Amino acid sequence: RSGKMAKLTHLVDNEVFRAYATYTTIVLLKMMLMSLITAYFRITRKAFVNLEDTASFGKGESAKKYLRTDPDVERVRRGHLNDLENIVPFLGIGLLYALSRPELSTALLHFRIFAGARIVHTFAYLIPLPQPSRGLSWAVGYAVTISMAYKVLKTVLYL
Amino acid sequence: RSGKMAKLTHLVDNEVFRAYATYTTIVLLKMMLMSLITAYFRITRKAFVNLEDTASFGKGESAKKYLRTDPDVERVRRGHLNDLENIVPFLGIGLLYALSRPELSTALLHFRIFAGARIVHTFAYLIPLPQPSRGLSWAVGYAVTISMAYKVLKTVLYL
Amino acid sequence: RSGKMAKLTHLVDNEVFRAYATYTTIVLLKMMLMSLITAYFRITRKAFVNLEDTASFGKGESAKKYLRTDPDVERVRRGHLNDLENIVPFLGIGLLYALSRPELSTALLHFRIFAGARIVHTFAYLIPLPQPSRGLSWAVGYAVTISMAYKVLKTVLYL
Repeated sequence: RSGKMAKLTHLVDNEVFRAYATYTTIVLLKMMLMSLITAYFRITRKAFVNLEDTASFGKGESAKKYLRTDPDVERVRRGHLNDLENIVPFLGIGLLYALSRPELSTALLHFRIFAGARIVHTFAYLIPLPQPSRGLSWAVGYAVTISMAYKVLKTVLYL
Repeated sequence: RSGKMAKLTHLVDNEVFRAYATYTTIVLLKMMLMSLITAYFRITRKAFVNLEDTASFGKGESAKKYLRTDPDVERVRRGHLNDLENIVPFLGIGLLYALSRPELSTALLHFRIFAGARIVHTFAYLIPLPQPSRGLSWAVGYAVTISMAYKVLKTVLYL
Repeated sequence: RSGKMAKLTHLVDNEVFRAYATYTTIVLLKMMLMSLITAYFRITRKAFVNLEDTASFGKGESAKKYLRTDPDVERVRRGHLNDLENIVPFLGIGLLYALSRPELSTALLHFRIFAGARIVHTFAYLIPLPQPSRGLSWAVGYAVTISMAYKVLKTVLYL
């Protein structure tokens, strides 16, 4: 039993894997933060989508007026969806990349740039910053993921 | 070759990992169920979004009237998107947590509460139950994921 | 150090895992391609959702007319969301399946059919092909994922 546990722990003793775990956790927590920001704007802007969510603001017709879209809420939701579209590929390709024996320094460079780019992307979307801030930060994260995918396919290709 | 296979199998012989695999598969299957529920409501409510999906209901203008949104369809789709937003972090952070040597009993507690919370969340969204049912079940799953993320970062932090 | 690295590499030396890594990378890259197609249609159709994205087309009211939805853009976005809904379960369940000691030939069959089905689904959505092309390709990918989930639960079930 303890022998098996020891084997398992090799993954978390490996520096590349630890770096992957750290940056993946950071970007996933950042993505989860979008839920809280959405809730904050829904409550402060009184803009809801489900009738049961408006019950505390009154009954019947007086509650229905809070069933509406708000530009700030929609903006956060677009940022959240963009996170999903880009962080899911990082989650999968990054894991395979971390297992494909990259140099530690190269791996760190990929993970740090991706995490930084996604954090900049969030600020660029929510403030919002003028383009091309958001576009560039999106493209940097995208390019890092493509670079990791190339390394994965070069290392493991088995069709 | 068989030596390598044996090493691989250590992961699935580890009880924490097996628990992670079981609950992850359960919540992902639950999420996939949302697709079937969406299809069910689209067909019974005759509410479609693609013109090619309405072909069996008639041609031209008579088919176009089925290109519409339906409150029940939209509700399931929101539940599905909420699943994606919350189950993706569980998938990634939960995997790293399962590899970070947690106590089996602690890990089981995390996985069981998360899966239970997401199942309650789905019922709360689809029935719908009065608030704060949905809000609370969402928050419980969110808190479990944060708790696992804390353990991961404490164990592996490598910036 | 090198002893630990050697253990880690067993995963990428395993043929089932290499096949999983290859096909997962392929479907994630295919999903990422949807972002580029969305951007292409947004630019060629001049249909944007953020005011800051329209700045290069003029100022004030003349830019606002490009804040609109376009049927082609919306179609790609639906395809992208459908990818997320189906490729996330494949990512998670497929990983657990690859670690559950399937026969190599059986695993390859699952991975190849899933990847093929998702590629057909994309063409069926974007061209669009008449139904049931899109519905069938969706169902094939869904069934493959269910089949892998069954194998995972049969192998590791730990509630």
